Amino acid sequence: MDIKHYMNDVGQRARKASRAMAKADTGAKNKALALIAAAIRRDADALRAANQKDMEAARANGLAPAMLDRLALSDKAIATMAEGLEQIVSLPDPIGEMSNMKYRPTGIQVGQMRVPLGVIGIIYEARPNVTVDAAGLCIKSGNATILRGGSEAIHCNQALAKLVKEGLAGAGLPQDAVQIVETTDRAAVGELITMPQYVDVIVPRGGKGLIERLMKESKVPMIKHLDGICHVYIDDKADIDKALKIAFNAKCHRYGTCNTMETLLVARGIAAQVLPKLAELYGTKEVELRADEEAGKVLAGYPRLARATEEDWRTEYLAAILAVKIVGDVGEAIEHINTYSSQHTDAIVTEDYSRAMRFLREVDSASVMVNASTRFADGFEYGLGAEIGISNDKLHARGPVGLEGLTSLKYVVFGHGEVRE
Amino acid sequence: MDIKHYMNDVGQRARKASRAMAKADTGAKNKALALIAAAIRRDADALRAANQKDMEAARANGLAPAMLDRLALSDKAIATMAEGLEQIVSLPDPIGEMSNMKYRPTGIQVGQMRVPLGVIGIIYEARPNVTVDAAGLCIKSGNATILRGGSEAIHCNQALAKLVKEGLAGAGLPQDAVQIVETTDRAAVGELITMPQYVDVIVPRGGKGLIERLMKESKVPMIKHLDGICHVYIDDKADIDKALKIAFNAKCHRYGTCNTMETLLVARGIAAQVLPKLAELYGTKEVELRADEEAGKVLAGYPRLARATEEDWRTEYLAAILAVKIVGDVGEAIEHINTYSSQHTDAIVTEDYSRAMRFLREVDSASVMVNASTRFADGFEYGLGAEIGISNDKLHARGPVGLEGLTSLKYVVFGHGEVRE
Repeated sequence: MDIKHYMNDVGQRARKASRAMAKADTGAKNKALALIAAAIRRDADALRAANQKDMEAARANGLAPAMLDRLALSDKAIATMAEGLEQIVSLPDPIGEMSNMKYRPTGIQVGQMRVPLGVIGIIYEARPNVTVDAAGLCIKSGNATILRGGSEAIHCNQALAKLVKEGLAGAGLPQDAVQIVETTDRAAVGELITMPQYVDVIVPRGGKGLIERLMKESKVPMIKHLDGICHVYIDDKADIDKALKIAFNAKCHRYGTCNTMETLLVARGIAAQVLPKLAELYGTKEVELRADEEAGKVLAGYPRLARATEEDWRTEYLAAILAVKIVGDVGEAIEHINTYSSQHTDAIVTEDYSRAMRFLREVDSASVMVNASTRFADGFEYGLGAEIGISNDKLHARGPVGLEGLTSLKYVVFGHGEVRE
Repeated sequence: MDIKHYMNDVGQRARKASRAMAKADTGAKNKALALIAAAIRRDADALRAANQKDMEAARANGLAPAMLDRLALSDKAIATMAEGLEQIVSLPDPIGEMSNMKYRPTGIQVGQMRVPLGVIGIIYEARPNVTVDAAGLCIKSGNATILRGGSEAIHCNQALAKLVKEGLAGAGLPQDAVQIVETTDRAAVGELITMPQYVDVIVPRGGKGLIERLMKESKVPMIKHLDGICHVYIDDKADIDKALKIAFNAKCHRYGTCNTMETLLVARGIAAQVLPKLAELYGTKEVELRADEEAGKVLAGYPRLARATEEDWRTEYLAAILAVKIVGDVGEAIEHINTYSSQHTDAIVTEDYSRAMRFLREVDSASVMVNASTRFADGFEYGLGAEIGISNDKLHARGPVGLEGLTSLKYVVFGHGEVRE
């Protein structure tokens, strides 16, 4: 197989299909999504069989247990995929919406229309559910998509692709609107990210290593985040109960997610009061605390205590480890966060109005919160209805990215024969 | 001078100043703009003297007359610069605006806050007025900026930079918020576009050659357009008077602008009626018509008639030349436009509702118009109040880019102690 030639063909087909998708009406797109959901339920046995093939190969290749977990397609996972598509059906169609249509003194009326981006390339790990989620979001937002899932899921992804194409065809939409890269050759990724003539944006979903590699090589803009070094700052005007709940939840609700707190900042004036209580809570989960000198003194006697180094302020642990630092005030907290944060999600706990407002304004991160757990930074929790990914960048979409992040605004002008004088 | 070292220092200063600018209040930003405007009026003589130095050097170096024109700083140009800043004062401050704050079932309230991008690098030709415009827009939008103007304008730009810094200081804002690259060495541009750690976005304003070169080398995202191959399609249901006015204005109002029409498409059913009348109008301006075979027959006898080649459909003439093609219907017009247009601005002239709506929806360009001249595609005409540039890209800003294009939205969450279950 000539990968370059194959991917070029995939790109050309996607570009062509994107034209048809851009003008597809809401009814047709929703029909396709409903048909795919029904087909997934109907063919649950076949999907499980395809997944079984992938699982056996993965086991034989010694895939790590965590990866095997993500690869596995349970009955519940199959039901969730179908339900996810039906949820996307219920979301409003963003495409064609016109806004801000205003008359100008010249007589023309000017505003904006929401339109698809075109072709979205999605690169992800061996997680079959992402195949269906991503296809659904791209269909609803009028885009064509090229999906490159982890090679360990190839059989399951091919089975899913058949059902997606069946749904598209049943709704009168081009089958090339969703293409799955049919080769597990890694060179296909290299082609996908260097075809700006066919691909408008790449959404990489995976570990930091993957994304760093893609950032170096991609000639196509990306919607991505590299890591989540999230902070909670407990102000000395914090409500202690809220502070304990939030700082415990932000660290211990799940360790492996990008919106998990990695560094806790505590105001000097409240540290002696709040840190010992927090240590009790973290102790129940055997969380290791890496404290600066001052916090270390307050936490003396905690069984899993270590001294934090400069490196700790820059580390996304994704584990039961937390860096802890005492700061003088909200200004020092903001300074620390704007220096070390990955600009993903940072929260303040305070009852002080002015400090809350200052934190909101000055912390330069994609999500900034007052009195809430960083774990809420998520497309579903924010009410986007779905999430294709999270962006830490400032251009285009920032924070959780839903349907709207897969669209753009073009200007539309209604005239009556006006010309420029 | 060690250019790498110098630009690194400029970048670091800009990044630091951007933090202060992000939290600057509206009053301080407006005060800085008003002070700069006053200083420009006060020092008009000194600015003219600096410009004179540039003009003499440029003449000695044999700069082309068109470039000399742009470099010259007349009394009127000085007044216009000051007025431009005062107009920016009167625009609403986009920064800090919160929108869509909605309660979620969990109890948190989620919405978005408009924030600056950070540091904007602007690369432009020897046009002193751009220095002031760009500085003004970046100040108002809470960004720091690094300006790299054409080296021929260096004396005038340095004089302007002094006044800008005076205004910033007078308003208590950091002088490094606006920095002018003090060297004419071209290597400085190479550094500016490869410092993503200090520069968030590059806005190149200049010819196609400059922008193509920057696209190849830049490691920083750009807000840019490469060229403007704009179309007017005259439908067979067009009002003939509107069609004549628009097709004449779109070509002949100014030849050198990016929103000037370069290809005219005419529906077969109306070509015999409309083309001879248009030829009369274009004849008064000695416009050369490059017609396809069919249009050529209708236009036979026109004194400046040539046969269009495939290359003509892809050419931005920026001159008194127009490509003309006859098409069957609106579908064929859309197909031609989506194939050859630079996705800048395209217009239909028609009285038919369904065709107008179809054209608006299906033409994939930054501005799509019905019954109006393409010459309206402009930040001022659209009511943005100002324009930093035009984007033909779909990510981030598309079409004329004003203050809002220099901003981003971050998510803000108001909580009451909520945690994720």
